[in-house]
Amino acid sequence: MTLANSLSEPENELTALEILSRTKALVVPALEAASQRLGLEVQPVVSHHFAAGGKYVRACLALLSANAADADDQVGLVGALAIEFVHNFSLIHDDIIDGDTTRRHEPTVWAKYGVGPALIAGDALSALAFQLLLEEPTAERVWAARRLADAVQAMIVGQAQDIASEHQPSLSLEECLRMEAGKTGALLACAASIGAVLAGANDAVVNALSEYGDHLGLAFQATDDMLGVWGEPSVTGKPVGNDLRLRKKTLPISIANAKGFDVFAETTSSVEGDLSEAEVAAAIVLLEECGAQYETLELAEKELGAALMALENAPMANTARTELAVIARYVIGRDK
Amino acid sequence: MTLANSLSEPENELTALEILSRTKALVVPALEAASQRLGLEVQPVVSHHFAAGGKYVRACLALLSANAADADDQVGLVGALAIEFVHNFSLIHDDIIDGDTTRRHEPTVWAKYGVGPALIAGDALSALAFQLLLEEPTAERVWAARRLADAVQAMIVGQAQDIASEHQPSLSLEECLRMEAGKTGALLACAASIGAVLAGANDAVVNALSEYGDHLGLAFQATDDMLGVWGEPSVTGKPVGNDLRLRKKTLPISIANAKGFDVFAETTSSVEGDLSEAEVAAAIVLLEECGAQYETLELAEKELGAALMALENAPMANTARTELAVIARYVIGRDK
Repeated sequence: MTLANSLSEPENELTALEILSRTKALVVPALEAASQRLGLEVQPVVSHHFAAGGKYVRACLALLSANAADADDQVGLVGALAIEFVHNFSLIHDDIIDGDTTRRHEPTVWAKYGVGPALIAGDALSALAFQLLLEEPTAERVWAARRLADAVQAMIVGQAQDIASEHQPSLSLEECLRMEAGKTGALLACAASIGAVLAGANDAVVNALSEYGDHLGLAFQATDDMLGVWGEPSVTGKPVGNDLRLRKKTLPISIANAKGFDVFAETTSSVEGDLSEAEVAAAIVLLEECGAQYETLELAEKELGAALMALENAPMANTARTELAVIARYVIGRDK
Repeated sequence: MTLANSLSEPENELTALEILSRTKALVVPALEAASQRLGLEVQPVVSHHFAAGGKYVRACLALLSANAADADDQVGLVGALAIEFVHNFSLIHDDIIDGDTTRRHEPTVWAKYGVGPALIAGDALSALAFQLLLEEPTAERVWAARRLADAVQAMIVGQAQDIASEHQPSLSLEECLRMEAGKTGALLACAASIGAVLAGANDAVVNALSEYGDHLGLAFQATDDMLGVWGEPSVTGKPVGNDLRLRKKTLPISIANAKGFDVFAETTSSVEGDLSEAEVAAAIVLLEECGAQYETLELAEKELGAALMALENAPMANTARTELAVIARYVIGRDK
């Protein structure tokens, strides 16, 4: 059983790819145009990062959320760009923090250009997001910029909790969920509502879209955590059990913990450093046998359900609602 | 002859310290209060950084620029906080980039907590600056936030040029001035005008203050570059000739270059790596003998004059104008 088969229908996946490809067609050239505003030294660094591709899920949500408020893609576009710049700033900085040398099968920015240029490139993308939103400071764009600043701060809190968790023996499920809501949910919630904000939608719509994004964030992260343990290396581009090897305090680990299984304590006698291949294999068996794998999948499904419910309960354009649901199912069913 | 003696009168320095101490009394508690909004994991990291102290020149300029537009310190305060958060975000990130292990005689943030937490702390301060300005989105605060985003981007361009210059044999004087205008001038210009922006001042006042800040930035950086070569280590907290040892392309080097002296080529046969003590000493002698030391000092004086002229030419409150001039003279005459 793969995650993709268990959670999504082939026809949904195809439609999601169509929606994402429509997003890319609009957003990628606009991202390239906006990147010209970066310093000449920063541009090639940023280009290298973007050249490796990406799914543009966040940009897609930003555009769909404008559609949800009966506005067209052009209204949501500046929000989609700002969100993508912030998201990629966080990826570039995360790769420095985690010491990851490849992303999407390409060298990460710091691995190719060094820590300094990578750090600067991330900073530049973050500032560019606010420049774009504030250069025409309508009430809607200012509101969007304010929500984006709050989302960035929440994301950073989540990242800081993630780093701190490296030195903790374990995280409770509650702590883990809070960390993942910050790391992933905050920006997804901002993405899923920024188009509606830019369209001047009322609070009911904005809040419903934001709630959809929060739940989708947790579902997304649960999927990510599943892929970090059970993902196919040739597809994810990361080694088998990569998160286990690095002792990451992911959802499956915290779920096992809540069931009384201290996965790292039970599979390795060392207290720090990478797990060996045999220890990773033992940890995987334990996570499967104690039911943590199954429950992580269940959690992803539950959060997906809550995300879809948030869409149902608010007034919005039906086509956008359907497409937001399709994207949500795709995100949870993806295999990389 | 010390820089302090050559450029400032003792009575000015005392008054500058009084103005700065008045700034600190207002700004430091407000910075501490605003820092409470950071994540619990980030707060101690940021506290460590701020505990080492600082001159709060930028915060001071922000408050004085509100005074210049006939507004009181409270109007400029949020601008002073935003500027200080951005400035300290750049210091924390710069220390990572440069690998500097001490600042103000204390371990730098990355040296004490690691690169990840330092990187995150800088990101958090940057986001906090925009949160503060945008949480009450009046037209003035939005204008301030927009100018701040532009200043951050210009600062980053300067930092990127600085990093890139490490791999260049030399910088022309023009390139060096452009880099330093970005690195230091952009944020100082924003600081020196943000209070007036928040007070809703007209363009003539805002532009004059901004021009003052631009020139002060170059004068400030020329002083910094002088201290990096001729500063007293017990006062600056950095080794003798630190910038030379690291082959930094500072103003004295570019000025010598414009006079036909390639300082690094003439004092060391190696093309990379730190200069030895003997090579540093030889470089210092060359910079002095070719007149680059004297001309850097002259450049600082010329930029100081241009900064003061910008103040003279615009309508503003006289007390603030005088105090801005006092601070400018202090900044150029400082010894650390």
